[in-house]
Amino acid sequence: MSASRPFVSLATDFGAAYSAICAGVVYSITPDANVLVLSDEITPYAIVEGAMLLEQALPYLPVGVHVGIVDPGVGTRRYPVGIATGRGDLLVGPDNGLLVPAAEALGGVVRAHRLENPAYRLPEVSTSFHGRDVFSPAAAHLAGGVDLAEFGPATDLVRLDPPPAAVRDGELETIVLYADQFGSLILAAGRDDLTAALGDLPFGTDLELAWTGPDGIPRTARAPFEETFGRVARDEPLLWIDSSGRLGLAVNQGSAAARFGLGESAALTIRSL
Amino acid sequence: MSASRPFVSLATDFGAAYSAICAGVVYSITPDANVLVLSDEITPYAIVEGAMLLEQALPYLPVGVHVGIVDPGVGTRRYPVGIATGRGDLLVGPDNGLLVPAAEALGGVVRAHRLENPAYRLPEVSTSFHGRDVFSPAAAHLAGGVDLAEFGPATDLVRLDPPPAAVRDGELETIVLYADQFGSLILAAGRDDLTAALGDLPFGTDLELAWTGPDGIPRTARAPFEETFGRVARDEPLLWIDSSGRLGLAVNQGSAAARFGLGESAALTIRSL
Amino acid sequence: MSASRPFVSLATDFGAAYSAICAGVVYSITPDANVLVLSDEITPYAIVEGAMLLEQALPYLPVGVHVGIVDPGVGTRRYPVGIATGRGDLLVGPDNGLLVPAAEALGGVVRAHRLENPAYRLPEVSTSFHGRDVFSPAAAHLAGGVDLAEFGPATDLVRLDPPPAAVRDGELETIVLYADQFGSLILAAGRDDLTAALGDLPFGTDLELAWTGPDGIPRTARAPFEETFGRVARDEPLLWIDSSGRLGLAVNQGSAAARFGLGESAALTIRSL
Repeated sequence: MSASRPFVSLATDFGAAYSAICAGVVYSITPDANVLVLSDEITPYAIVEGAMLLEQALPYLPVGVHVGIVDPGVGTRRYPVGIATGRGDLLVGPDNGLLVPAAEALGGVVRAHRLENPAYRLPEVSTSFHGRDVFSPAAAHLAGGVDLAEFGPATDLVRLDPPPAAVRDGELETIVLYADQFGSLILAAGRDDLTAALGDLPFGTDLELAWTGPDGIPRTARAPFEETFGRVARDEPLLWIDSSGRLGLAVNQGSAAARFGLGESAALTIRSL
Repeated sequence: MSASRPFVSLATDFGAAYSAICAGVVYSITPDANVLVLSDEITPYAIVEGAMLLEQALPYLPVGVHVGIVDPGVGTRRYPVGIATGRGDLLVGPDNGLLVPAAEALGGVVRAHRLENPAYRLPEVSTSFHGRDVFSPAAAHLAGGVDLAEFGPATDLVRLDPPPAAVRDGELETIVLYADQFGSLILAAGRDDLTAALGDLPFGTDLELAWTGPDGIPRTARAPFEETFGRVARDEPLLWIDSSGRLGLAVNQGSAAARFGLGESAALTIRSL
Repeated sequence: MSASRPFVSLATDFGAAYSAICAGVVYSITPDANVLVLSDEITPYAIVEGAMLLEQALPYLPVGVHVGIVDPGVGTRRYPVGIATGRGDLLVGPDNGLLVPAAEALGGVVRAHRLENPAYRLPEVSTSFHGRDVFSPAAAHLAGGVDLAEFGPATDLVRLDPPPAAVRDGELETIVLYADQFGSLILAAGRDDLTAALGDLPFGTDLELAWTGPDGIPRTARAPFEETFGRVARDEPLLWIDSSGRLGLAVNQGSAAARFGLGESAALTIRSL
């Protein structure tokens, strides 16, 4: 990591102000850091959405210290951890699975330590804002060159349950991981899952979607598998492989979440016609 | 442009996370860049709103590389372009008219080239996230000193249709360009259009507004032409010349968009009483 | 303040784009500044909410120039001011009380001057965007080392009315200061007020909340006083002392604002059972 301007990123569900306070704490300890707020608007408490964001984004950021905080268990028996990755990054956040998919995408977990050492926390630690009092100071000190082992003992890590994906002949059963800014639904399945279930699909192949709405009524719709949004007419749906290799359901210049009434963790089945 | 800390700005309709990924890509290529996210919340697909933002904002930012991305045509036959301006900036974005009003405000288009050279893209280019894979790497390399001509051949530029503004004696017919964060409606007319239609108006002159609602019913309202919001009582409407010289319709400490039910591209007529 | 990379923060109710324009103006005058947008999403016109944010946040940011702008009186007889604090910061913003609680938290008001000198404004000053034309240039010049007295004469400061807090034996009457990103309600009372009204409360003590809804109907609810969110079951309410020492009403992994239908300035009474 560049000693002249160490890179630090921050992703939280705190909103703008609380996230910026965290950035300010980093600057107050390591003034020459380059701090980028990756997101301050992860859906509150949505650990899976945060984990998927970090997994998608961190490989495109410079090697550095990356803080991820979605922490409904703040102040309870959930431990703060630091993880060293194969690529050379340090990830900082709660030990609730949030950081692990990103660590795997960055060359794997090399070391993991609890962040316990009071020397690397603020002098007063609140019960509800560990982003400011524990995680940001830890990140600042790591960016300044303190070794991870100084923060606490080595530890195992909690891992997220892998999301269910059922591949059957002619049918792919999956769930919505999250909805993005545009209302596009990113699914817990990738190109390989689609191929395993439905074979090699030429672009333009119509597929059937099936799901049960919150009202309990089964619904179906059709959407073609396409290369990108502009391949269908405006306001028409499509399935596509997104920029992180995941299968997605979108509406060209519209919102799939609104069109289909689907959101995070909704179950969806995709079939050949 | 300062070689020590080249300035790069980013304006997109992507939301916080995808925009920050773009910033991270710039830093990963040009670590000493100073990257400012001008906006990550342009209304999705709203090319005119994005163009007006860039036109308003870029003259107040340092000379640098300015990326603008509102790109419903991503991955189709819409080309990525780089534009050199009279002031010395480089603008990067889709060739759909988004960048051209800003270029004119920055001293005009001096050169325009397609961004095609794979040396200045990421090794893998997705079909739907060119902000990350094409535009941000191009911006980073331009900020690092690569000449615009290295990116591809010279090209003409698509231009936006100028918005309609009809000036008649005693009457100004225009449209809403966009609604800002406060719900104030910024119109496609300026001080000169108002004077041409209605003559020199002293502050405090009452004017009549006329429009047809989405329900097809014609409506009118009164609002005075004033210097600034605080010249009318709280919750009262006013017309004023905004900080970029455009005519605007606001409500003091309220939202004109909510009060009048008007939004982007709504037609509005302003008359003397 | 570090001369090599002077720190500047910005907190506004402008939204992303207008706030970033302000940051760009700072960079155009003082290119080596480190500008952090603390918030661009203060509720429009909410001076108390902005004042509480600055009071909470600025002590955790580096010593520097901190701009706060919530300014419904822009362009009228409200003056722009600069305040020097005991800690060594310079605060810049409207003289409407917004900056004063933060100044007190940063060691008190040492000096206050009007920001009038046209040498430290943009050449053209609009009537409605002083953030760009007055406050940001002033902040940039202060960050560059210009002394506060150069900007205009010394002045007294408008102060906010202290929020009402009534402590009676067995009962604490207070108001909601603001709702945060999670819908948690931060009250205008602290630990000392709670102790004065209800005595020393062990964690887990049930308390009664009483308020009158917008429909005029009196309502009550129960909530325990707890250390942090995770001490109650998911979707259960709690009262806790937040990270800035204020009493708050939250719902574990939910929104208290939504649960109770309460928002900024709502009156609330807390009683022993």
